[in-house]
Parts: sequence; C-alpha cells; structure tokens
Amino acid sequence: MLLATGVSAIYQESDLLALLYSSLISVGVGASTVFLMRNAEKNIGKHEGFIIVSLVWVVFSFFGSIPYLMSEAIPSMTDAFFETMSGFTTTGSSILNDIESLPHGILFWRSMTQWLGGMGIIVLSLAILPVFGIGGMQLFAAEVPGPTPDKLNPKIKQTAKNLWAIYLLFTIIETILLWIGGMSFFDAINHSFTTMATGGYSTKQASVAYWSSPYIQYVIVFFMFIAGTNFSLSYCALTGKFDKVYKNEEFKYYILFIIGFTAIIFSGLLITTSLGFEQAFRDTLFQVVSIITTTGYATADYLTWTPFLTILIFALFFFGGSAGSTGGGIKIMRIVLLMKNSYYELRRLLHPNAVIPVRFNKRAVNEQVITNVLAFFMFYFIIFFLSTIILTLIEPSLESSMGAVATCLGNIGPGLGNVGPAENFAHVHPFGKWFLSFLMLLGRLELFTVLVLFSPAFWKQ
Amino acid sequence: MLLATGVSAIYQESDLLALLYSSLISVGVGASTVFLMRNAEKNIGKHEGFIIVSLVWVVFSFFGSIPYLMSEAIPSMTDAFFETMSGFTTTGSSILNDIESLPHGILFWRSMTQWLGGMGIIVLSLAILPVFGIGGMQLFAAEVPGPTPDKLNPKIKQTAKNLWAIYLLFTIIETILLWIGGMSFFDAINHSFTTMATGGYSTKQASVAYWSSPYIQYVIVFFMFIAGTNFSLSYCALTGKFDKVYKNEEFKYYILFIIGFTAIIFSGLLITTSLGFEQAFRDTLFQVVSIITTTGYATADYLTWTPFLTILIFALFFFGGSAGSTGGGIKIMRIVLLMKNSYYELRRLLHPNAVIPVRFNKRAVNEQVITNVLAFFMFYFIIFFLSTIILTLIEPSLESSMGAVATCLGNIGPGLGNVGPAENFAHVHPFGKWFLSFLMLLGRLELFTVLVLFSPAFWKQ
Repeated sequence: MLLATGVSAIYQESDLLALLYSSLISVGVGASTVFLMRNAEKNIGKHEGFIIVSLVWVVFSFFGSIPYLMSEAIPSMTDAFFETMSGFTTTGSSILNDIESLPHGILFWRSMTQWLGGMGIIVLSLAILPVFGIGGMQLFAAEVPGPTPDKLNPKIKQTAKNLWAIYLLFTIIETILLWIGGMSFFDAINHSFTTMATGGYSTKQASVAYWSSPYIQYVIVFFMFIAGTNFSLSYCALTGKFDKVYKNEEFKYYILFIIGFTAIIFSGLLITTSLGFEQAFRDTLFQVVSIITTTGYATADYLTWTPFLTILIFALFFFGGSAGSTGGGIKIMRIVLLMKNSYYELRRLLHPNAVIPVRFNKRAVNEQVITNVLAFFMFYFIIFFLSTIILTLIEPSLESSMGAVATCLGNIGPGLGNVGPAENFAHVHPFGKWFLSFLMLLGRLELFTVLVLFSPAFWKQ
Repeated sequence: MLLATGVSAIYQESDLLALLYSSLISVGVGASTVFLMRNAEKNIGKHEGFIIVSLVWVVFSFFGSIPYLMSEAIPSMTDAFFETMSGFTTTGSSILNDIESLPHGILFWRSMTQWLGGMGIIVLSLAILPVFGIGGMQLFAAEVPGPTPDKLNPKIKQTAKNLWAIYLLFTIIETILLWIGGMSFFDAINHSFTTMATGGYSTKQASVAYWSSPYIQYVIVFFMFIAGTNFSLSYCALTGKFDKVYKNEEFKYYILFIIGFTAIIFSGLLITTSLGFEQAFRDTLFQVVSIITTTGYATADYLTWTPFLTILIFALFFFGGSAGSTGGGIKIMRIVLLMKNSYYELRRLLHPNAVIPVRFNKRAVNEQVITNVLAFFMFYFIIFFLSTIILTLIEPSLESSMGAVATCLGNIGPGLGNVGPAENFAHVHPFGKWFLSFLMLLGRLELFTVLVLFSPAFWKQ
C-alpha cells in the first residue's frame, strides 16, 4: 500500500492522503498484532492452518478496501469489499463504471491487490495446500523445487523465494515488452501485474480492447499463457530441465485444449462473421487464453457471437489454468484426471477384477487423490447449481445468474448476460455482491479449505 | 401390437389395417429370427449382454414406429422413431401437435410402448444390470426377492414374474380409480400405462391439465409416487415386510426431497401468484412429483412461474426416481451417496489416516460402488454439457438446448424454453431429433451400458 502511496505522490493526485492513512492504519494494526502475539505458540496445527488461510483473504480484503473508501473512489463498503476481494482472489470482476476517472495511486493499488493475490496463491497451492492434503496437488509435491509435504519449515521459504523470483522476473519482462509496444509505463506495469496474477483488472474501461495493436495483444496472450502454467514448471524450464516440461502431461493437455477450442471458435467466427483472417484468429486466441487461464481480459465481446460459440467460451469457464499457476477454476490437471478416470471406469466394467490405476505423468495415481478430485468436482457443481438458484432470486435471467456464479467461483472476471465482458457488476444487488465475494474466496482456496470450516466435524475437536 | 389392433377393431377406425400389418411384420420377423437362431449358443457372456441390451431398445423402436408410419399418423420416419424411442425409454417427449385427432388404436399403442418400456426397465435395473456391475445397483441385489448376481437363470424369471405382477396390479388399480373419478375407460387405461412407466404420454394435447378434477390429479400424483419407488420395496410392502420399507434410506430421502421442494415452491407460488391455497399446493405437488419421478405430465406450465421457481423445477431434472423404479434420471440413491461421500471427504481431510466408509442402509458401502457412482455423475454432466453445446448449433437459445438435453437424458418429457410443458418437439431440426433419441437411450440404459460400446477396450477382445 505504501508503494501505491509512492505512485500517488509522483502523480500528485487527490488520493495521496487516503492511501497514506490507509497504509498507516494497516501497518499500525499489523505491527500491534505481531507485538501482542510475540509470545504465542509458533507451531500451528492443521486446524489452525485451515482457519488462517481462509481468514487471510477476508482480513486482507477488509484492509485492502480502506483506500477505496477513504479516497471515495468507491464510497460504498459493499462495492469496495467486492472490488478488493475480486482483486486478492485474482478474479477481476469489477463494479467500476468509469475506470479512467480514478487517480493513478488507486489504480495502482487495484492492480497490486491482484499481483499480491497471485503471489499468495502460488505459495498456497505449491507449498501450503499439499501439506493439508487438498486438491490432489500432492501429485506435484515431489516436483516443486523445495518443500516436502512433511516439513513446512524452513524449505518452504526457499521454494517461495524461487517461485516469487520467477513471478517478479516475468512481470518485469512483460512490463518492458508492453512499454516497447507503445503502452505508457504506468499502464504497462499495471497490466503486467494483472496478467501474471491471471487477474484481469485493466486501467481502461474497455479492457485490453483499448489497445488495437496486435503486438500488445499477442504479448499479453503469451504472458497469460505463462501465468496459467505451473510455476514450478517454469522454474524447471528456466533452470534448463526441459525434459520435465516435455514430459508434463498437464502442460500437454493445457496446450491441446487451447489449440482445440481456438480451432473450433476461429472456424466458427470465419463462417459467421465478416472478420478478417488475422483479426478472427487474434480475437479467438485472446478470448480463449484469457478465459481458460481465468484472467478475464477482453478484446472482443463473446456474447455477440452465435450461441454455439458463446457456449463454447462458457464451457471454458469450467477449465481453469494449470495446478500451481495463478489461474483459478477447476484446473487442467483435475479435468484430465477426471477424463482418464471416467474412461478407466468403462474398462473396469469389462474387467471387474483387474486393478487398473489411473496413470498421470507415467506414474500410477493414488486412489485417494482420485476420490479427492472427484469430490472436488461434486462440490464445484453442487455449489455452482445451488448458487445459481440463489442468484435467480435477485438476477433477472438464468444466463446472468449462471454467468455470475461461474465467473466468480472460477475467479475469471466477465460472465454472461448482464455481467458480460461489456458490462460490470455495479448493478448487482448488495446481497449478490457479498454472496459473489464469498464464491470468489471459495473458488480461490480450492473449495475444501473454506468448506471444511463449515463441517461440524471440524469444530468437534 | 396385436392388443392395439384389437382396440382399433373395437373402435372400427382407419388405423386397423396399419396396426394389423405392423403386427404381422413384427411377428414374422421375430418368429423367423427365433427359428434361424434355434441352434445358436444359449450362454451369453458380458460382452454380448451389453450389445443385446442396447440393441433391444433400438430394434424395438424401429419396429414400434411401423404403425405410426403405415397409418400415416406420423408420416416422417424421423418423427416416428423419435416418438417410439421416447415411448420405449418412458421419456414422454412428443412431436405430436394434435394428439386428440389420432385414432384410438394408435393412441393405445403409443401408451403401450411406455408401459412395455417400463416393464423392461424394471427387470433390467433390478435383475440384469447388477450382473453387469452397472450403476451401483449391486447395493440392492441382496434385497431383490429373487436373483443373486452370480446366477442369472433361472431365478431371474421368478423375480421378473413377481415384479411384473406388482406392476400389473398397480396399473389395474389406477385404471379403476381414474375410471371412478370420471375419466373414460380408454383414457383411464392409457394414463395408467403411462403413469406406472413414469412415461408421461397423455391422450390429450393439454396433458393431465385436461382434467381439472382434484381427485384425478391426486390419484395420478399417488401412482407417480409409487412408480418412482423401488419396485422391490413395493414387493416388500405388499408381502408385509414393512420394516424393510421404514429402514430404506433411499425411500426416506425420496420423500424428504419431495416435501422440501414442494414446501419451497408452494410458498413461492403463494407469494408470487394469486392462486388459491389448494390450487397452489396441488399445482406444486403435481409438478414436483411429475418431474422428480421423470413422468413428465403437466397440470401447470412451470415456465410461467418466476425464474427462481422455474430453476428449482429444473434442478429436479437432475434427481430422478428411485433405483429399481421405472423412473429415469440420476436416481435418488446416487444423489444420496454423492452427498454423503462429499461430506465424508471433508472429514477425511481432517483425519487422512482414518478409514471412514460411506454408510447406506446402515451398511458400509464398497469403495468400488462409490467410484462407480462418481463416474456416473461425471459422465452425466459431461454428456449434458457437450450435448447442450451441440444442440446450440440448431436451437435458438441456451435454455431450450439445456432443457431439451436434460429432459431427454433424464427420460422426463417437457423441457425449458421452446420445448416447455406447453410446447412439443415437432419443430426441432431432424438432426436434433435423432440426437435426442440417442440421449434418451443413453439415459435409460444408465449411460454405461451404451457408453461401453464406444470404448476401444470393448472391441479389443
């Protein structure tokens, strides 16, 4: 927040004091808490872990919304909390109607919430959640250059440093490339922040469509793709272990899904619209990568396409980036494990007594990981359906409800109907904003981390 | 078909010769096949079983459509096949625009396809599929009064006889009760046929709404409820084993779901419409029972309700009757196992080393049954999503596509949008009709029976 205050000082704008006071409040509360807790038990157990992880996002979102409130950039508490939660969860759904009118310090803070959220999620998914046994991420535990699931400290610190170094490196490179391409330095750094976090906040109301330059759009596509890739895989690539990259099945399917959807939608656009070849290809690739990685930038409004193409994009809402990336959603790894398990179930029908384990990256996958992945899907769809039903109480159409729920639960950004890429969430009923904020949190923390807090079994001990 | 010919003879209508010729063709082809195959191997294996079960419904639907074609009641092959498949799978989706104009023999044949389909499905789900290891029905294998999974013959014959006797008994009682209530004998027997099969074909274009008598509607509600109950449970009740009924968890949840949905929708209708207390209650109960049992009769158009109530009804599309009933869909047992397993998964997160089996009817459920149920869900939703995407190619709206797919895959009848309860499937593109017919078959045969035929592993041996 102090960084954003610095930005505001450079631009000499009205938000300087608001950001400064917000920083002081946050630093003050933080420092006092550290001081008061200096004698507390340092070894935390699993139960405390679940509570801490869930609370971190909520507490951060309350403190993070102070600059919006104090600067009156977003005067309503509901809206400010929604915008901040959407930031820290790297969702990117916004309630802002006129982004360009905001001062630079506030815009910088807004992008930064996403960048920080992305940083948090990398460590969470690659180092902390595996220790809790959540999300089948155990599969990757062995590949992460650092911690083993048994010992959280001190190796976790080294891993975190390695991953954050890559994250920072990519952010710097993207900033430079966008700057070279004609973006202002301020816009370049903001978009790099929100690209690498697969967040999708833009400094322009029109999102990336504001820049018609193919160069800028392709650069962003490339970095969205990187941000949707497992960061420990990027670490492998950067340290020369290319065989790890080639052999990684999730990465292979990630690319295959992008190619497949791009091919179909690209053909569809060529047939049904008068767009030129390159424009149709770029529009398709940008939208496909933006949605599959759960970034949520827009250079075209997919709601204006024919229903078949729109629903293909909507199907992508249920994919999500790779495990260990900053992307949200269901994740490629789970989709692949699900497909494989389904197919194997058919084989099991034919050979009921044969033991046919699902294989991933050429290793047999533990039955417990499969059950966990299947349970994840179940929860995801149960939550999706129930939430859609609840949202129809305040939203006019089924499509809007489905779109809003899917996009918030998947941490994407734009939805369908009246929350499409050309719209925003300003008009949603306050109840809906709090509810959708909760869904963002639920999706971001891989469901289980939050859900387990609602199970009576958790509180029994 | 000869029975329908008899009905036609009584009414002396134009369809007599068509039905007679159709019967002769069917008898002729059937008898020749039996004669030609008299020396064939009688012991069939699992592979043959899968093929036979899937083909039975397809072959029956081709022969069953001959009366429609010859009588010119339905001149188009596509439409006639759709109507017959919708009959034999007890779906009830229709392409007919003017049902009352059809001769009695044809109407009787139409209702009978459903009654025969229902008969077939009882034996299939309670006696044949468990032998294939499909659908988690193994849970019930022990309770079915007859076969054990190991020996298909000759106990299967005794079970089949017992279950069909109950099926026939219920059909007769309902016919009498409807007749007493003021329906013509012809309408009463037709509606009993299609109620007990949870089929939903009516002899009137307005469906059951044609009879405004509360007595008739409540009688039908009661028998839809019975038809959606496991027939081996009805057998237990009729033979005095009431403890089996009380202790049955699926039955308990079946009732709970009906009460829950009825309570919410009833309250909703009271608040949002000017309907009287009894009318609102009856409309709700009828629609809820009709949809959850996958019958598909209508006495009210749920598309005219507020979106929240409509989507609650649509949620019921994904429930379905009890296992071992004539109902289609996902089935209550699977829903309950899914909910339990999801909750247990949260407990497993807290105690990774504890063995916590899911319990059903007070017994621990085999892990393999759980995996099978989860795989069923996966396939169900994958098929639902992919089919919806495919249907948007020919259907104007997302809602219509979702509704048509959900209703055909769940063997229900009416859908959403332009295939709602007040509409029919006549306007659907021929490609859509064949595709939806396939979905009916897929849903009716619990997915796996048909899907396994498409797996390369099946054809390797």
